Amino acid sequence: MARQSLDKLVIFGVGLIGGSFALAVRRTGRAKRIVGVGRSRANIEEALRRGVIDESAESMASAVHGADLILLALPVGQMRKVMRAIAPHLEMHTLVTDAGSTKQDVVALARECLGTHLKRFVPAHPVAGAELSGVGAAKADLFINKNVVVTPLAKTDKNALRRVENLWASCGARVSQMTPRQHDEIFAAVSHLPHLLAYALMDEIAAKPDAAKLINYAGSGFRDFTRIAGSSPEMWRDIALANRNILLKQLSEYQGQLKHVAHLIRKGDGAALEKMFTRARNARKKWLRDNR
Amino acid sequence: MARQSLDKLVIFGVGLIGGSFALAVRRTGRAKRIVGVGRSRANIEEALRRGVIDESAESMASAVHGADLILLALPVGQMRKVMRAIAPHLEMHTLVTDAGSTKQDVVALARECLGTHLKRFVPAHPVAGAELSGVGAAKADLFINKNVVVTPLAKTDKNALRRVENLWASCGARVSQMTPRQHDEIFAAVSHLPHLLAYALMDEIAAKPDAAKLINYAGSGFRDFTRIAGSSPEMWRDIALANRNILLKQLSEYQGQLKHVAHLIRKGDGAALEKMFTRARNARKKWLRDNR
Repeated sequence: MARQSLDKLVIFGVGLIGGSFALAVRRTGRAKRIVGVGRSRANIEEALRRGVIDESAESMASAVHGADLILLALPVGQMRKVMRAIAPHLEMHTLVTDAGSTKQDVVALARECLGTHLKRFVPAHPVAGAELSGVGAAKADLFINKNVVVTPLAKTDKNALRRVENLWASCGARVSQMTPRQHDEIFAAVSHLPHLLAYALMDEIAAKPDAAKLINYAGSGFRDFTRIAGSSPEMWRDIALANRNILLKQLSEYQGQLKHVAHLIRKGDGAALEKMFTRARNARKKWLRDNR
Repeated sequence: MARQSLDKLVIFGVGLIGGSFALAVRRTGRAKRIVGVGRSRANIEEALRRGVIDESAESMASAVHGADLILLALPVGQMRKVMRAIAPHLEMHTLVTDAGSTKQDVVALARECLGTHLKRFVPAHPVAGAELSGVGAAKADLFINKNVVVTPLAKTDKNALRRVENLWASCGARVSQMTPRQHDEIFAAVSHLPHLLAYALMDEIAAKPDAAKLINYAGSGFRDFTRIAGSSPEMWRDIALANRNILLKQLSEYQGQLKHVAHLIRKGDGAALEKMFTRARNARKKWLRDNR
């Protein structure tokens, strides 16, 4: 297949992910023009100043006009509005992809909003979040060796799929495929639930009368455990709601696990606690070893 | 006060904390001889080879004989056995201190085991844990700018207290005082509970049939969140049991918090979720700012 070239790449949401994608694609030399669209005028100005995008769009129609590829890198709560706004302006050849952290809901929105263009929509999730947000945090090497999960539908155009996959691969990412449901289950477990747990603990501690004193004694373990509680509240609100069914199920399983832990502590079952902690440590060690 | 010098410093448990204390005190030039005692022959050999200790002891009596200061840097589950073993050999001038992560239980054991020597026992907790353990992880600068909490009793000898505090300060630590109960409440919140939560999540994920696949998609957020689940299972078993009453109370409060989170997600209350996440993020930001 010939190396693809994009005359016009349009990015909705020029934040950490959208901005980094712009920088990464620019570095591959595959995009002639990168256009940014965003809610925050200040952020778009900064993206222009930093050379992340070449121009901002005056209107939805002008943004979409002539686009080869549109990336929707928005909090999932913004997706419906933007999909509806772009749908009437989409041209036959335009590919649409997204960077949403949940996939079942984004796919449902695409079905609802994109009409016959659905086949040229490639749902995707670049797994490269950070507790930082905004274009100031964007960097061209963000996706190197990071996972990008694509969740194509039965009717997704094979050529569209391949082009989006190739583009991510050219940014250094490891691309894999799964169904939207598999995706949402996996990321509920290894990402959404941990974020909820960290936010919940941090909020609880902050609400205590002696919070300042408590937190003054927190060490590096606490700092790392709560790092993800520094993430964007809007983005995580949207994820919690978008993936609510799976997340509630897993949260309930975790509540059961905590009940079990409390039971072991209450009856002083040191052997069972040590066994659990050892299993946990070994699983983590193995994971780190396999991912070096 | 004259700069104190220790003819003989004895360390029970030459692991991360005990070994780092040996290295840090050695660097101050205050210790003429450092003697190590430990369960693992291999670890003691390594401590000798690395020059962390000058010698190992042949017997409990010879270890304690002539000691100016004894540091008990053991998992709290080992404390009773060692306190009982050293008690008959303690000399009038010998100071005893510990590095246990819980204080109410260690103080209770000291009352039980040390008899009239209790007044020369200074309960302390250097807050410098890591998920690493063993003398191989020890380093002389581990305590620089780290908190060391001492929890003296009404009958603790003031001179003994001052000497132990000075020694920790000379290793670069920030020394503060509180009661054993205050200590155990604070560290349950910012250390013990987070460890339990991380172990519980890691263990739960490891037990799933598709664990390998799940974990393959985990990112840096998960890695940091679960870092403390790589800690010593024995040490954390002991801490969970030693601080069980306070820990069970805080675990129960956290379970209440999760129930509340689940409720907000179930009813789709995005505004309340965003508010909670924002409070958490702001509290964490403030903490990081205050502790730079």
